[in-house]
Amino acid sequence: MEPREDLLQLRERILQEDWSALPAQFEPLYVQDIAEAMQGLEPTQMLRAFEELPRERWPAVFAYIEPIEAQYPLLQQMDVDDGRYVLQSLPPDDRTALLESLPQDDVEQLFKLLTPEAVKQALNQLGYPEDSAGRLMNTQYVTVRPEWSLARALEHVRASADQGEGVNTLYVTDKSGRLLGAVSLKRLVLGAPKARVESLISGPAVSILASLDQEEAARMIQRYDITSLPVVDRNGVLLGVITVDDIMDVLEEESTEDFHKIGGVGALDISLREARPSLLYRKRVGWLVLLVFMNIFGGGAIAYFEATIEAVIALVFFLPLIVDSGGNAGAQSSTLMVRALATGDVRPRDWLRLWGKELGVAIALGVTMGIAVWGLGLWRGGADVGTVVALSMVLVVVFGSMIGMVLPFALTRFGFDPATASAPLITSIADIGGILIYFSIATAILIVPAG
Amino acid sequence: MEPREDLLQLRERILQEDWSALPAQFEPLYVQDIAEAMQGLEPTQMLRAFEELPRERWPAVFAYIEPIEAQYPLLQQMDVDDGRYVLQSLPPDDRTALLESLPQDDVEQLFKLLTPEAVKQALNQLGYPEDSAGRLMNTQYVTVRPEWSLARALEHVRASADQGEGVNTLYVTDKSGRLLGAVSLKRLVLGAPKARVESLISGPAVSILASLDQEEAARMIQRYDITSLPVVDRNGVLLGVITVDDIMDVLEEESTEDFHKIGGVGALDISLREARPSLLYRKRVGWLVLLVFMNIFGGGAIAYFEATIEAVIALVFFLPLIVDSGGNAGAQSSTLMVRALATGDVRPRDWLRLWGKELGVAIALGVTMGIAVWGLGLWRGGADVGTVVALSMVLVVVFGSMIGMVLPFALTRFGFDPATASAPLITSIADIGGILIYFSIATAILIVPAG
Repeated sequence: MEPREDLLQLRERILQEDWSALPAQFEPLYVQDIAEAMQGLEPTQMLRAFEELPRERWPAVFAYIEPIEAQYPLLQQMDVDDGRYVLQSLPPDDRTALLESLPQDDVEQLFKLLTPEAVKQALNQLGYPEDSAGRLMNTQYVTVRPEWSLARALEHVRASADQGEGVNTLYVTDKSGRLLGAVSLKRLVLGAPKARVESLISGPAVSILASLDQEEAARMIQRYDITSLPVVDRNGVLLGVITVDDIMDVLEEESTEDFHKIGGVGALDISLREARPSLLYRKRVGWLVLLVFMNIFGGGAIAYFEATIEAVIALVFFLPLIVDSGGNAGAQSSTLMVRALATGDVRPRDWLRLWGKELGVAIALGVTMGIAVWGLGLWRGGADVGTVVALSMVLVVVFGSMIGMVLPFALTRFGFDPATASAPLITSIADIGGILIYFSIATAILIVPAG
Repeated sequence: MEPREDLLQLRERILQEDWSALPAQFEPLYVQDIAEAMQGLEPTQMLRAFEELPRERWPAVFAYIEPIEAQYPLLQQMDVDDGRYVLQSLPPDDRTALLESLPQDDVEQLFKLLTPEAVKQALNQLGYPEDSAGRLMNTQYVTVRPEWSLARALEHVRASADQGEGVNTLYVTDKSGRLLGAVSLKRLVLGAPKARVESLISGPAVSILASLDQEEAARMIQRYDITSLPVVDRNGVLLGVITVDDIMDVLEEESTEDFHKIGGVGALDISLREARPSLLYRKRVGWLVLLVFMNIFGGGAIAYFEATIEAVIALVFFLPLIVDSGGNAGAQSSTLMVRALATGDVRPRDWLRLWGKELGVAIALGVTMGIAVWGLGLWRGGADVGTVVALSMVLVVVFGSMIGMVLPFALTRFGFDPATASAPLITSIADIGGILIYFSIATAILIVPAG
């Protein structure tokens, strides 16, 4: 999405402290857009801008600004009453998202602004593991009883009108709060008023245990095309609901994490724009230094063949070409595998079938590349060098592809994240293999001991 | 999500042609699960398994099997009446997804199974550009008029009960079909029956032009936390609705495409599991061959410094180490930038600010790495080689990082996809730069002409 001109202008107005113009500019905008225009403002400026918003829009706009960079500093600027109003009106899941990223002392400060009930709810939710379904759920949903008539259920929905987000789906629970099923508001409205709620339950509702990972929740929502997913405890008691909008954020975060990993960067849990240089340094330096030490083996392999290199110095010309091709082919394979494993397109048990296919593709690629460089070798070093270069290319591309394919599966097999098989790691392994393959073949073909 | 044991067993039953057990096994399952258990079956087996399903579940299960690999072959196996029933009951957007991937002749065969209305709808939808919002929309939604009472609107919803998917939100249109706003079913149910529909419209509905890209639709649904997005023509006339479940698939596809591109693979539009080896070959060979020709420059650079290498052969030991580090740092930067540009976390106009930050991070990384290899150089080649290696490392890491950062922005600036700055491309560019930097420094420091 292109940056929107109107939001850039609005931002300019705020930066120029042209307060009187703001109410009219805010009026037609969605809260998400207002939050975007305020992104990155100083807390004092942001508070001043908030003052030009109708008070009833405060919680909604507040919900869409960044928790650590904006929500918390803004709360510190606000007087106690405003802070209480905003924080108490924040949906519980958003409140938890703010609290979970703050230090203990700050959390206690914020607890003073909340009702005892809200504190209890927050403590409860913070008790679930990080990145679990329990952390992500919200508690704004409506439950009905199986024995109620549809008319009574509808009456109950009306009475719970402010229980916002999840109300398109109603959850049917028994007396102990155990989830029995789900009924859409649509079917409730369309059904005969005297029919019983249980007659609309078509089967057990899809649900998730609170302790399971958010990613699992995302896969369920995606698979079953539902817009909300009930969260239950081990006894099947309904605890909360995860909505599809939060799930889309989870999916995006997970993709970003995998993306970073495949590029050899530790997962950033905040925006690249907001990330401090020191954080970026820490997320990158580990892999870089580790790979340097791996590349010492590459250097060692070269040193081992020093005599061959000195005898036929032209071989060095082809070194980047051959070695990089193996790394590139490997980076391609690992990228394909890591993504397919992440989306569930490919399962660990598919590895053997895919291995056969990958081998075929790799041989075809290697032969193509071998032919492409054979002429080059012939031209620069004669027939023997041409043979060395072409043969090495075939083997190096096959070797790189196999490493790139097998490593993600092997990592999964031993309980590691397949995305650890990053492009830089595969490239380094393929480089070492490539150097050994290339100079071994060269030594065998070119350095014939005078018989 | 782990493969589910019950589905694997069900699949075994089908493969063993144990038909009598199927109805009981199908009964408690969701249609998505049944479709998964059938994945990859031969069309005749799949048809036989369908016959054990109640006929009213056919269309729903059919909607979840793969269009090209399963839906079309299955239709060819079915008798005309069954085919007509299934195809006609398929939601229009799923029908379009099937038709758009078939050759013209097959499309015409399928048209014979459809009512003239459905054919018209399909032709209409196929008239929108590939990957546009128009292709993705479905036409199952309910419209109401602004002047109607809520009671009348609710009556209208009841009468349109089978207009499935989008019915949690009703769209308000004028006499010419122009979109005026959106009203949730919830607010309709909760409102006073005599109130007018227009009193519930809070502002202009978020909507998208049919000709715009699906990715734009995805960003809007994500941004505004909505579960359906109305699609309009240039006059604002409502044409259809895009639902969040389809958008999640779009987001996943777009991520996969970027993922593949950053790994130097052309975007696969079908599953890796299903992709033929010849397709995988074609998607990979282009970059590999292109990069070989780029690496000739790397070879050329080495050849240019042949005298230096012959004089100090120990330099070759450090070649993979230094050159790869530049490539790795570059792969890290480009991965971070490409993903941040794709998610909208970073905008093209942010480049200067990020450039400064990246330069700082790169220098810190380069110095760390320089120190790490300085001792190694000292040990293997003496003080001068240590200096050459350490100095080269700093410059190479900074150079690689800068290329990795700037290239995605430059590509965006000139209208290309930033993900074209793939890890293999950045690695190759960084390699050439690395060779030049390393041997230039080595020549300057080590090969002093005898004064």
